[in-house]
Amino acid sequence: MAQPGRPRSEQARRTILAAAAKLVARNGYGELTMEGIATEAGVSKQTIYRWWSTKAEVVLEAVNEGAAEMAAVPDSGSLADDLRLFLRRTVDATTPVNRRLLASLMAAAQLDDQFAKSFRTGFLASRRRELRGMLARAQERGEIAASVDLDQLVEVVYALLWYRILVQHGPLDRRFGRQVADSVLRLSRAA
Amino acid sequence: MAQPGRPRSEQARRTILAAAAKLVARNGYGELTMEGIATEAGVSKQTIYRWWSTKAEVVLEAVNEGAAEMAAVPDSGSLADDLRLFLRRTVDATTPVNRRLLASLMAAAQLDDQFAKSFRTGFLASRRRELRGMLARAQERGEIAASVDLDQLVEVVYALLWYRILVQHGPLDRRFGRQVADSVLRLSRAA
Repeated sequence: MAQPGRPRSEQARRTILAAAAKLVARNGYGELTMEGIATEAGVSKQTIYRWWSTKAEVVLEAVNEGAAEMAAVPDSGSLADDLRLFLRRTVDATTPVNRRLLASLMAAAQLDDQFAKSFRTGFLASRRRELRGMLARAQERGEIAASVDLDQLVEVVYALLWYRILVQHGPLDRRFGRQVADSVLRLSRAA
Repeated sequence: MAQPGRPRSEQARRTILAAAAKLVARNGYGELTMEGIATEAGVSKQTIYRWWSTKAEVVLEAVNEGAAEMAAVPDSGSLADDLRLFLRRTVDATTPVNRRLLASLMAAAQLDDQFAKSFRTGFLASRRRELRGMLARAQERGEIAASVDLDQLVEVVYALLWYRILVQHGPLDRRFGRQVADSVLRLSRAA
């Protein structure tokens, strides 16, 4: 939404996204306002509205960028290595603040249908798509049985991560990451 | 919390629990009040406070009873049969209203630490415990390899169910229930 002739400052953009993420992690998505983001980021409300129309757009841009940075999908030629590295990066990146941010967004999606749609078709679908690409390359190499449904493997990974993020009945640590990777590796063999 | 000499009417109790569940499914847990439950159930607020101290107690009693009724853990002597029946009952019982109720409660748990604790140590832990009991019997019969960690199998079941309840990117139907059961059966063999 940058306007022609008015180059969007990368520095300001990052400050605003960080402010939005911080506020959601602190108070939940429901409490977030464009005004609050402006105050936290030290910019005017107009600056924010110049680039984004709604708070949902700001927050989704923040989490999309964060996810892309923190858990880039590896491509080493080995499914086991790629999966373990991907899960290790993911759990490492899920700091307490990021965990609260993600949990708040999943909560918001249950209370706000409009946001749910953006969150589901944007962030969540794009994360599934990236992981599916990694698994598809492994299936082409013969590392995953042809009879295995890749969508079901993707589902197992994100379901386990989200259940732990939301319920918090156990740590979201590297050991947990290895367990998730191992489950998927076992499911990737022929039934 | 029934008081001596004042027998709790089972009929009134059920009406109140149903009213609370309906309101949470409709407007979310955040909007629920004891007054709202009383109005919906057609009883006085005093009647509700006689039996429960907080709205969290009412709602948790409602979901605990619903879960116990709808997805009693079978014990046929066959892991495959038990798992498939358990999953079929669970998805059948997750009607659109029940799905909204569960989603609202998981959202509330992200926004309210007190409720989160009750939800986690009460409802969620008791569901995991029941399923674990079923798997432990199967492991004793030799249907699950001794090396398999039962908690991880339980985690796969509830993670997949919850991810689908919350993200709604696919149907929560019998086909999905069979997929979950099959994944767990495959993971229950020795690694």
